[in-house]
Amino acid sequence: MNSNQKSIVLIGAGNVATQLGAALKKEGYLISQVYSRTKKSAEALAKTLKAAPLTDLKKIDTGAAIVIIAVKDDAIAAIAKQLKLKDQLLVHTSGSVEMNVLKACSKNFGVFYPLQTFTKGKTVVFKSVPICIEANNSAASTTLQYFAKSLSRKVQKINSDQRKKIHLAAVFACNFSNHMYAIADELLRKEKLSLDLLQPLIEETASKIKNSKPSDVQTGPAVRGDKKTMDAHLKLLGTNKKLKTLYQLISEGIQTKL
Amino acid sequence: MNSNQKSIVLIGAGNVATQLGAALKKEGYLISQVYSRTKKSAEALAKTLKAAPLTDLKKIDTGAAIVIIAVKDDAIAAIAKQLKLKDQLLVHTSGSVEMNVLKACSKNFGVFYPLQTFTKGKTVVFKSVPICIEANNSAASTTLQYFAKSLSRKVQKINSDQRKKIHLAAVFACNFSNHMYAIADELLRKEKLSLDLLQPLIEETASKIKNSKPSDVQTGPAVRGDKKTMDAHLKLLGTNKKLKTLYQLISEGIQTKL
Repeated sequence: MNSNQKSIVLIGAGNVATQLGAALKKEGYLISQVYSRTKKSAEALAKTLKAAPLTDLKKIDTGAAIVIIAVKDDAIAAIAKQLKLKDQLLVHTSGSVEMNVLKACSKNFGVFYPLQTFTKGKTVVFKSVPICIEANNSAASTTLQYFAKSLSRKVQKINSDQRKKIHLAAVFACNFSNHMYAIADELLRKEKLSLDLLQPLIEETASKIKNSKPSDVQTGPAVRGDKKTMDAHLKLLGTNKKLKTLYQLISEGIQTKL
Repeated sequence: MNSNQKSIVLIGAGNVATQLGAALKKEGYLISQVYSRTKKSAEALAKTLKAAPLTDLKKIDTGAAIVIIAVKDDAIAAIAKQLKLKDQLLVHTSGSVEMNVLKACSKNFGVFYPLQTFTKGKTVVFKSVPICIEANNSAASTTLQYFAKSLSRKVQKINSDQRKKIHLAAVFACNFSNHMYAIADELLRKEKLSLDLLQPLIEETASKIKNSKPSDVQTGPAVRGDKKTMDAHLKLLGTNKKLKTLYQLISEGIQTKL
């Protein structure tokens, strides 16, 4: 280990930890340990990051400058219970978990929330991922800000209340949009057609809101008030009551702008 | 007019007609007339396409090889009633309107349905727009196929039944996704935050389904079964009952894969 450079401990070995680890490595950071509950996962990620695998949080590297908890939201509290640090900066990467869940773990703590969806095997350009940061004191905030800026061009201070609302908005914009794609995919599969047909449309829809308010650039039967087409669509959905309800509810939302 | 080149008549002056007109011009087609109900719209688009404006369908260019109806779905039937052609290829551009609405207008008719969302002021690369074609006889089909292939690399024969289902799928993938963005936008505006924060996430979500089934790459609280976060989100949505119902319905859909 380079004694001149403070290291980072990465807790977690899932999609976020993997991509964050790769971004850290790319920026020249030294990752001393990678923790996972299972030895196999810890070893696998540790190997790619030239770090030591860790399965016992009591053996955490006390010389690390930053400890990052990048695990599923509902696993953060359990990890926090096991962590006793002095003044190392401890952050989690969740959009929905309170910063204060880390209160008892270190003097300096905060949140490093990358606003991106991380999928296995698909590398994300971290430099353009917005990072929402929050810290419990101004020293921690300064450190976290420098650290975040070294990884991304888009760093923004966001408090816990705002972060939760951003996370909620992200669920609509990302998870729920993806479910719309999933429904389209199912409808096409029944016709032995591929979602590839809709890919340019999907990407254009995602791209055109860069410079426009989404409700201003809405197209389709609902915003046109084209009842004939909407009725035909409901008929096509056949006996699928849930999909019909969904179609009607979203169409109504489009027409009333919520 | 170049007497060696058969011309095209464009009926409509909205977003589809404008972008299609530009694509036709780019490929070297001669557009003889642009029709719109209002003189002003007809003149505006005709001018950019070096065509003559037309407001009376009785005066349509009888020498045109192809007549394209690119108007709103619910206006096609009214246009068709006024059109009496001989054997010119007549097509409409709608995803949801029957091909046979053009039956009485010409011997050769069909559908030229570009699977894309067209927005004012935003140019679309037509070459990569999938075009679904259908024609009433094999001669018309051949002409239409060559014509479509001159504009796009992705031309596919699709019958009326399939086209309607593609259109329905497109409503989910495009209009309904856009509504998810609109909801996210509203939630962020209330916090005085910008949708720009979510743009990389939105584009990554749209991009990652290129090589994956959408339901296989779903992320977020619903697919994780993270009830705590979902409950917190419902609480954050406050008194907005419709949005709560929508949140629950889509989350349920994600969990049951429809």
